[in-house]
Formats: sequence, structure tokens, C-alpha cells
Amino acid sequence: MVKKIFDSILGKSPARNEEDYMELDLASYEGSNEEEPASMYIKIATIADLKDTPRVKDEVYNGNIVIVDIGRLKMDKVTFERVLKDLRDVAKDVNGDIVGLGEQKYVLITPMSVKVSREKIGGGL
Amino acid sequence: MVKKIFDSILGKSPARNEEDYMELDLASYEGSNEEEPASMYIKIATIADLKDTPRVKDEVYNGNIVIVDIGRLKMDKVTFERVLKDLRDVAKDVNGDIVGLGEQKYVLITPMSVKVSREKIGGGL
Repeated sequence: MVKKIFDSILGKSPARNEEDYMELDLASYEGSNEEEPASMYIKIATIADLKDTPRVKDEVYNGNIVIVDIGRLKMDKVTFERVLKDLRDVAKDVNGDIVGLGEQKYVLITPMSVKVSREKIGGGL
Repeated sequence: MVKKIFDSILGKSPARNEEDYMELDLASYEGSNEEEPASMYIKIATIADLKDTPRVKDEVYNGNIVIVDIGRLKMDKVTFERVLKDLRDVAKDVNGDIVGLGEQKYVLITPMSVKVSREKIGGGL
């Protein structure tokens, strides 16, 4: 599903999902100027098994932020714990940060000097 | 639910959700050294209506990344479109970036020099 959205961003296919409340064309709101250089990237990753972790770790060591979809790991507690331990070690190693997001579907890992605020904004909560 | 997880991070309550496949204690993997200064923060926000947008915009103008939960806006297409237009304008204004994430439940907005990679990592896709 995430793939579908990113395909949509990339223009590969329309992001239509019959389960949605209404058809949303978020892609039309999205913008980026990919020609311009960036000092930092946010990378979107999926970890489905142990072999996916090295690339995520490399990105954090390279100074990038990674949002990891760990939804598929929930079925396998042993792999889940091992992957999460690995990721936590990386965050600690680079003096970054790591938090869960969205009903533990995502883990957000940051490089040095980037922290995740624990104070939530808005939503009347 | 996001609140529950963040409460858990903050140590307010245990993150237990009977609907999960198994009990995950992600909080035990999370770490941050909040005493140390950060050059950039990632803020987690919920936009439930128009009054929530100014704080999100302020954060981006202040050089922070914001992950906005827009799940509640899906019910109201007019507000959704207005909020998304606002956020896109901010990203454009600061030469940042904006993308949808997780079945359009989240929008990721970045400040200047931070871009979201459209190339997805891992997951065998």
C-alpha cells in the first residue's frame, strides 16, 4: 500500500483505494525540487526480514533520517526484537534518536543532532 | 492511539493494545538523550481542523521536520484540501519537501535543505 502511494508519487499508477472514505489525490499536493541539492534526506524503508536492516543502518550512518515500516515484522516476535535492537544500537551509536509512530507500524530513526520531540502538536489532545 | 504510544514513550502508561498480533514493547527500544542539544527536531502533529495548521507551519519555518497525522481530515474533503494547500505552500516557500505516507494517514513536511527520497528501501518490492 505504501508502495502504491510512492508509485503514485513517482507517477507509475494512480493512488486509488476503494477502502478510503473518499478519493484523495494527495499526489497533487506533493512537491519537491529534486534538482536542488539537499543537506539531509528522509528515506522511507520497509524491513520485512533481517537482510533489510544493513541498508537502513547505512542511511543513518550517512546522516539521513529513516522512516521504517515494521508492520510486517509484527508477526515474528524474534525477528522484530532483533531488528529493533539493531536499530536502537545504531541510533545510540550515532547519538541520534528512535521512536515508534502510528500504532507501532513505523519506527523513526535519526542521525546525530536530530531529535524527535516527545511533545505532540495539535489535535485537541 | 498515537497518543497512547507517545504516552508510553513518556512513561505515562503501558502501551498495550489487545488488537495487536502480539504485545510489543517498542518503548523499551526507544531511546533519546534529551539533555543534549539538537540542531533539528522532528515534531509529531495532528491536524484535526484549520486551527491546528499555524503551529505546524511555525515548526517548518523554524527549521523543523513535521510528521502530520491527517487521518481525521479525510472525512471533510473541503478542510482537507485547504489544509493540504496551506502545507504545500509552506514547503514550497521554505524550499522544503512534502509527501504523503502510510495510506495517506500522514503528511511529512520538511524545511529547507531536507528532502524526502522517492526511492524506497527494502521490503522486497
